Amino acid sequence: MEELRIPGPTPIPEEVLQSMTKQMINHRGEEFAVMLNRVTHNLKQLFQTRNDLYLLTASGTGGLEAAIVNMLSPGDKVLSVAVGVFGERFGIIAEKFGAEVTKLNFEWGTPADPAEVRKALQADPEIKAVLVTHNETSTGITNDLAAISAVVKEAGKLLLVDAISSLGSIKLPVDEWGCDVAVSGSQKGWMVPPGLAMVSISPAAWEAHAEATMPRFYWDFSQAKSYFEKEQTPWTPAISIVYALYASLDTIMKEGLEEIIARHHRVANVARDGIKSLGLVLYGDEAYASDTVTAVRSESGHNIKKIIRIMREEHDIVLGGGQQRLDGQIFRIGHLGWVNEGDIEKVIEALKVVLPQTV
Amino acid sequence: MEELRIPGPTPIPEEVLQSMTKQMINHRGEEFAVMLNRVTHNLKQLFQTRNDLYLLTASGTGGLEAAIVNMLSPGDKVLSVAVGVFGERFGIIAEKFGAEVTKLNFEWGTPADPAEVRKALQADPEIKAVLVTHNETSTGITNDLAAISAVVKEAGKLLLVDAISSLGSIKLPVDEWGCDVAVSGSQKGWMVPPGLAMVSISPAAWEAHAEATMPRFYWDFSQAKSYFEKEQTPWTPAISIVYALYASLDTIMKEGLEEIIARHHRVANVARDGIKSLGLVLYGDEAYASDTVTAVRSESGHNIKKIIRIMREEHDIVLGGGQQRLDGQIFRIGHLGWVNEGDIEKVIEALKVVLPQTV
Repeated sequence: MEELRIPGPTPIPEEVLQSMTKQMINHRGEEFAVMLNRVTHNLKQLFQTRNDLYLLTASGTGGLEAAIVNMLSPGDKVLSVAVGVFGERFGIIAEKFGAEVTKLNFEWGTPADPAEVRKALQADPEIKAVLVTHNETSTGITNDLAAISAVVKEAGKLLLVDAISSLGSIKLPVDEWGCDVAVSGSQKGWMVPPGLAMVSISPAAWEAHAEATMPRFYWDFSQAKSYFEKEQTPWTPAISIVYALYASLDTIMKEGLEEIIARHHRVANVARDGIKSLGLVLYGDEAYASDTVTAVRSESGHNIKKIIRIMREEHDIVLGGGQQRLDGQIFRIGHLGWVNEGDIEKVIEALKVVLPQTV
Repeated sequence: MEELRIPGPTPIPEEVLQSMTKQMINHRGEEFAVMLNRVTHNLKQLFQTRNDLYLLTASGTGGLEAAIVNMLSPGDKVLSVAVGVFGERFGIIAEKFGAEVTKLNFEWGTPADPAEVRKALQADPEIKAVLVTHNETSTGITNDLAAISAVVKEAGKLLLVDAISSLGSIKLPVDEWGCDVAVSGSQKGWMVPPGLAMVSISPAAWEAHAEATMPRFYWDFSQAKSYFEKEQTPWTPAISIVYALYASLDTIMKEGLEEIIARHHRVANVARDGIKSLGLVLYGDEAYASDTVTAVRSESGHNIKKIIRIMREEHDIVLGGGQQRLDGQIFRIGHLGWVNEGDIEKVIEALKVVLPQTV
């Protein structure tokens, strides 16, 4: 049995897997309404938000597209703050839908610099919204979203946050940090299969939505709102993933958000300390190292692809590779959701065996 | 245990439910590649197509949006042929994305008239594409897609087909009938939970795609194509629904498409004969009555909403209601996917008990 140590999808607890054996129900009936309300209520607690929050049947990328097309009009100026693959993707989506995107791309492995964000906003007062990735899984970097938010809010701009791999795992108080739209995805810290994106929408975001003219139908937040008032989703939802989320949120609420965040930090420390003890090197700025994914490189000539292959073939541990120009340059250990210190110690133990075979 | 007799989601066989208890795997790894290839291969057989076919993580409505934004440019002229809620929705999606839509709406309960489609195409030679719903679940009508297709192809137009509730249940040879894009959804005849849409794309559709400028990212067929060449999906797919589809397609292939279509016809006849034997009336033109859903009205003053409620509360059978202006006017019996004659006989028996309580 392989153990998934990639930054999503994440392993799923047995009781959550079992919850999906429940037979289908009418998604326009009372039983589904009860589940939808409960799931939404719990997610709002974990987003730490009083904003509206909706489920979309989609991958996380669909949630990002929804954030763009609901907030913006073609020609709107947008500042895209990117520190890796997913940050850059968020900006590309905005471009595809006709936004005028200023790209503030930081060197991969470094975090976004709030002072640079301020400068960019001052340089073009017409910018309407800022796109930021909270936790960049491609490089293992967590941005200082509180500081970035302060700058964005000081300038009075909308803040659209890709929180796909941070919400529910890393501290992100959505309201306190002024996230106008925050997007997460079920296959990350939520311990649920992929198929649902979650989006929260602030009052300022609703005002922007009312003016926004990018074309939309499936992603339309107004549709989500009007159906949610009937305790439904506009289109047939991924019911079995809702079952899973209903079950996993129970576990999550019992453990408590603060303890979950602390656990992710402890587990990440095991990963980082372990990597260094093996003579490997953390990719990127350790002061901003992510608590959900650790990116690793070698300065001793290890064959990274061979490490990933032997770890899987001989130790049943599935690691993530590098994406785009990091392909073959780094491997990534995912440690979010259903994970504890012992799980990551096993990864480090296995790496200790594998490394000598891969120089 | 309630029995779902709505036109989707449909009940799911036990072995398919159990297939979803499998732990998550890497969606960029070999095991997923094998499943994706097998699922795609089987679906192509059942679509009776040699066209490309991709899975999208979305509700069926997402698949329809994908068909629109991949085929058209803003300002393109489109003929929307509608016989109910879902047909009208298809046209609305095209409008939202800036197509110039000619609406050929037929009276609910009647099928689309191919002669009228021909007239509409002759009246405006600039029309580029025709949108048609094969099986309209809101009214229980199956359009004569072969005849409509002949007219559309004679005029040399693109044919975009909502086959969400027909493919895999009702005869629809995608290539023979010239469907340039055909869309289905997992929660219909496929006996799988909602969360995946399937789209097939003809060579002519690919040509249209290359010219089409509607904005798109998540739905982009080019992305689907380039990732499928690597045996992946562009965005994290709904893995547990892929597990379910993998399992259900095995069952489906064993039964065989011809027998499945014949079974749906037999089951639908049980529904129609049963309804008439109870003194109720089929909604719409019986010559075009759907083999996946039967829409029913009463000419004897039955309270339709009460029928639906008592059927659920006292007989554990969940029927569909009427949508939009048919709310309270009809109920609908879904009979697609995992259903046999006995299942529908049970519905008729229960209705026999309920009807006297609802006049």
